[in-house]
Amino acid sequence: MEIKTIHGAVPGMETYTGIPEELKLAVLEKIKPSEAEKKKLLEIQEELAAEVKAAAEKLGVSGVLVKMVGSAARGTWLSGTHDIDVFISFPEETPRKDLETLGMAIAREVAKHAEYAEDRHAEHPYLNIIFKGFDVDLVPCFRVASASRIKSAVDRTPFHNDFVKARIKGHEDEVLFLKQFMRGSGVYGSELKTQGFSGYLTELLIIHYGSFDKVIEAACSWKPGEKIDIMQHSEIENEEPLVMVDPTDPRRNVAAALSLDKFCMFIDSCREFVKNPELKFFFPAPLPPLEDREILDRLESRKSTQLAVVFKTPNVVEDVLYPQLYKMEQSTATLLKEYDFSMIKTGVWSGKNETVIMLELISGTLPNVKKHIGPPVWVRTHAEKFKEKYEGAENVFGGYIENGKYVFEIRRKYPMAKGLLENQLMHCSVGKHVCQSVSEAFEIIENAEICRLKDFDFRVFLRKWM
Amino acid sequence: MEIKTIHGAVPGMETYTGIPEELKLAVLEKIKPSEAEKKKLLEIQEELAAEVKAAAEKLGVSGVLVKMVGSAARGTWLSGTHDIDVFISFPEETPRKDLETLGMAIAREVAKHAEYAEDRHAEHPYLNIIFKGFDVDLVPCFRVASASRIKSAVDRTPFHNDFVKARIKGHEDEVLFLKQFMRGSGVYGSELKTQGFSGYLTELLIIHYGSFDKVIEAACSWKPGEKIDIMQHSEIENEEPLVMVDPTDPRRNVAAALSLDKFCMFIDSCREFVKNPELKFFFPAPLPPLEDREILDRLESRKSTQLAVVFKTPNVVEDVLYPQLYKMEQSTATLLKEYDFSMIKTGVWSGKNETVIMLELISGTLPNVKKHIGPPVWVRTHAEKFKEKYEGAENVFGGYIENGKYVFEIRRKYPMAKGLLENQLMHCSVGKHVCQSVSEAFEIIENAEICRLKDFDFRVFLRKWM
Repeated sequence: MEIKTIHGAVPGMETYTGIPEELKLAVLEKIKPSEAEKKKLLEIQEELAAEVKAAAEKLGVSGVLVKMVGSAARGTWLSGTHDIDVFISFPEETPRKDLETLGMAIAREVAKHAEYAEDRHAEHPYLNIIFKGFDVDLVPCFRVASASRIKSAVDRTPFHNDFVKARIKGHEDEVLFLKQFMRGSGVYGSELKTQGFSGYLTELLIIHYGSFDKVIEAACSWKPGEKIDIMQHSEIENEEPLVMVDPTDPRRNVAAALSLDKFCMFIDSCREFVKNPELKFFFPAPLPPLEDREILDRLESRKSTQLAVVFKTPNVVEDVLYPQLYKMEQSTATLLKEYDFSMIKTGVWSGKNETVIMLELISGTLPNVKKHIGPPVWVRTHAEKFKEKYEGAENVFGGYIENGKYVFEIRRKYPMAKGLLENQLMHCSVGKHVCQSVSEAFEIIENAEICRLKDFDFRVFLRKWM
Repeated sequence: MEIKTIHGAVPGMETYTGIPEELKLAVLEKIKPSEAEKKKLLEIQEELAAEVKAAAEKLGVSGVLVKMVGSAARGTWLSGTHDIDVFISFPEETPRKDLETLGMAIAREVAKHAEYAEDRHAEHPYLNIIFKGFDVDLVPCFRVASASRIKSAVDRTPFHNDFVKARIKGHEDEVLFLKQFMRGSGVYGSELKTQGFSGYLTELLIIHYGSFDKVIEAACSWKPGEKIDIMQHSEIENEEPLVMVDPTDPRRNVAAALSLDKFCMFIDSCREFVKNPELKFFFPAPLPPLEDREILDRLESRKSTQLAVVFKTPNVVEDVLYPQLYKMEQSTATLLKEYDFSMIKTGVWSGKNETVIMLELISGTLPNVKKHIGPPVWVRTHAEKFKEKYEGAENVFGGYIENGKYVFEIRRKYPMAKGLLENQLMHCSVGKHVCQSVSEAFEIIENAEICRLKDFDFRVFLRKWM
């Protein structure tokens, strides 16, 4: 599907006439919930509300209200997603301990009619259940008078819900367009793995700018530090790529989780879309996995060194896992640089069974000789100690004076990046769960050996990687 | 020959009790001209003076005086050296042109009785002859009233001569020790090849400090910026490693030619000598040339990349040649670094026939892929132009956003250092004569191919190099 726009002479100065009507229809057809889907969701929500009330009654807990929040409650959910957020709200004065015990007791009562249930934990415990095919979070919270008085992060959600619901009517499709566009660009989702745009942030962008088209057009010219303050009540000083002041809390940046690169990727996508608004931005063709022969061809063509640190994926939720993986990615790169290896790039992939830290190097091998530069000759005590240590010592090739400094050519401890990682990886700072897994077992595999990793998703990741 | 000194506990704090008596005798025996040698030199000097006078008379040039200068005239020459400097001095008011024509005419007349003669050129032309086995410079100069009124650099020499002669009596041996010590350390000679200590500088150091021992002891604690001003009349502001204010000219630094590294090498030698005063400092054992098999062993042991740029030695004097070679050494290193190659070290060797610029690299090969970092995504016009240029272009592997900037992985133009030099060496800035020679022919040879270079002196150079 190719849709023409009017092109100006200067790059980036094209006149964007908005998302073409036929593209709109093609996208909506795929993402807008049907009447039947809406009806079904409404029914399930009512059923869940009734279940919670019944459970509270059965357990003799009074003062409990049920609140449906999230995109399902606001009519901004994408067709095919089956997420429902049920908030079980307690009076503000409820002791924290009671909220947790009674809230979870009610949730567990509801879960008796669910296909599956799992305890989860954010600031408080909550229950995740599969209920008639829907992915439902049952979340106990405090019913506070205003968002500025919240006792727990989740208490904010009902305020977000009210704010959006009061303003989004008639703009739901615009939210759907934007969410799907972000999804297609790989920037949708505020979890710690993605560090992109949250659903709430997407809704606020539509409320602020008025439409999908206007968000896209504005984002083309965003710069880091872009600040949007719908209620004109900001109390935020810090500089982040995007500051979306929470309309319900002047101190909170709704876009705090957004990384600089995801911010930039969105800008980049918007500019490309404006030049050429096509369906592929919403629904990019899935990448096929990289075949063995393609891996070998690309290794041969690039001639860099590919290293993969492979270990068992720790059994923790992604929001716990990914910060640890990103930390490990950084610390392995730092280790390699410390020992003179030049990085091209680093990456993280994590599947159900295995996790891989990918490292691309200028070379995985360095010469045995390493130039070790000492103090200037005239800084006498230091210089003499340095010289005494190295002159004629084992593993020293020779020495000379260069730019007034003693220089010794010494034998490099780790001429191979692989050997360095095998020996020193355990001294890298990585998170608790990753450390546990790595200390059980890990493997460093190099270049063509990567063909041993057969996971479909990893091979898709590799296609983008190399 | 091992001579013990008292060693202190802290490095560099040894008590230096002076050059031991038996070492003194052993050194003097080798470097002090014998009575016969002195007599012979005196005779030759007198003969030359007579020749100059006779020539002037024959040519009808009046007002000419002959002056013997240099170490031969001051009794500070090392046994075995046969250099005599004969200055043919003209009255101050002589026109520059006459000085040159008449001066050279006289010199050529003298040269009629020489074994060999060669025109040379400093600020003025002069004649170098071999006369009864002695290497004699016949130098026309102006007879000015004071060193501050000199019309040419050589006019200063007679003043230096007078200053030293008036003060060196009885300390000649100390000068000889210091000269030989510097020669042994590779820092003797102020020509542009060596950038070390001149004979005059050596004499001034003895005059200032009083003895060889005191120079050595003082130099152990020298720092760059060390300033010696015997006449307390300095008009020098600039910072050089060593400032020896010329006693005959307050604006001139006698040590101006001394490089930082030669300054430091001298300090280093002094400290070693103080710890262990041995004959080898004066007469280091000559290094044997590196054999083919040693070259191969060392290459294998170091595993770095050795590159040699080889070309015909330009037929010019060393003072013209070496600055050009050093310039070329710098510019080839700069070229390699520009194209991402990492240098270990660079060096220059020049023989009668061939000249070699040696380059040691971390690796002579880089991957085909090169990370090309562009502008931040939000600098819209630049970023869009950058992206447009590289996205999907030939020889581009792929692109992504990193730290807010567009990054493209492009094909490296020169993945081999050898190929880079072969293609781009001619665009390096090198001096005129080197450029001429290189443009006629040059060759880049790598690693084991270096065995093809058989020159004895080059092989000696290689032993220090690798």
